[in-house]
Amino acid sequence: MPFDPESLKYNDAGLIPAIAQDHATGEVLMMAWMNATSLARTLETGQVTYWSRSRQEFWAKGATSGHVQTLREMRVDCDRDCLLMQVEQVGAACHTGRRSCFYTVVDADGERITD
Amino acid sequence: MPFDPESLKYNDAGLIPAIAQDHATGEVLMMAWMNATSLARTLETGQVTYWSRSRQEFWAKGATSGHVQTLREMRVDCDRDCLLMQVEQVGAACHTGRRSCFYTVVDADGERITD
Repeated sequence: MPFDPESLKYNDAGLIPAIAQDHATGEVLMMAWMNATSLARTLETGQVTYWSRSRQEFWAKGATSGHVQTLREMRVDCDRDCLLMQVEQVGAACHTGRRSCFYTVVDADGERITD
Repeated sequence: MPFDPESLKYNDAGLIPAIAQDHATGEVLMMAWMNATSLARTLETGQVTYWSRSRQEFWAKGATSGHVQTLREMRVDCDRDCLLMQVEQVGAACHTGRRSCFYTVVDADGERITD
């Protein structure tokens, strides 16, 4: 039976969080949002496509920067309200040019940028 | 300067998504939500505490099951609207008894439970 994107749980804005993880190293690269259509496009094309909340449009990752994410495997969690994607990341996932968006460590004493 | 949880970006419900990753293996275990107070408690105690959206109460992970998450490192992303936590997970992160909540693979052809 084909996968039905509508079978997942979306928030009031019709979105589901999607975590991108480097398939080879396990590094968590970023978290962004998808709607049912961007999810279907991602599965169809094998290229990760998010929904940009700020621009309110489809966001084919890397379409302008070249920093595409090729999908290796997609999983959904037990509650069906979060996606985890194993990807091949070309270049930087982060708009700052860093490999991962999670470059800031926080603890009770403050924050520290790691790279 | 002490870390200020209020400096992060929360959604309209006052929540921020928090990804838990096994610090040793890199496996992504789950994604749940925190508010500023649960985040502060997590940093103070070193034990991961979420906010349960279904129960509308603090959710000290493992308080009843024993499947606690001890925080090893917390990071925030470039947009300051998502957390990534490296944790020591005792037992199962998932309420189904599985190590990770992401045990269902999806592709265009359907779904497949992996363990």
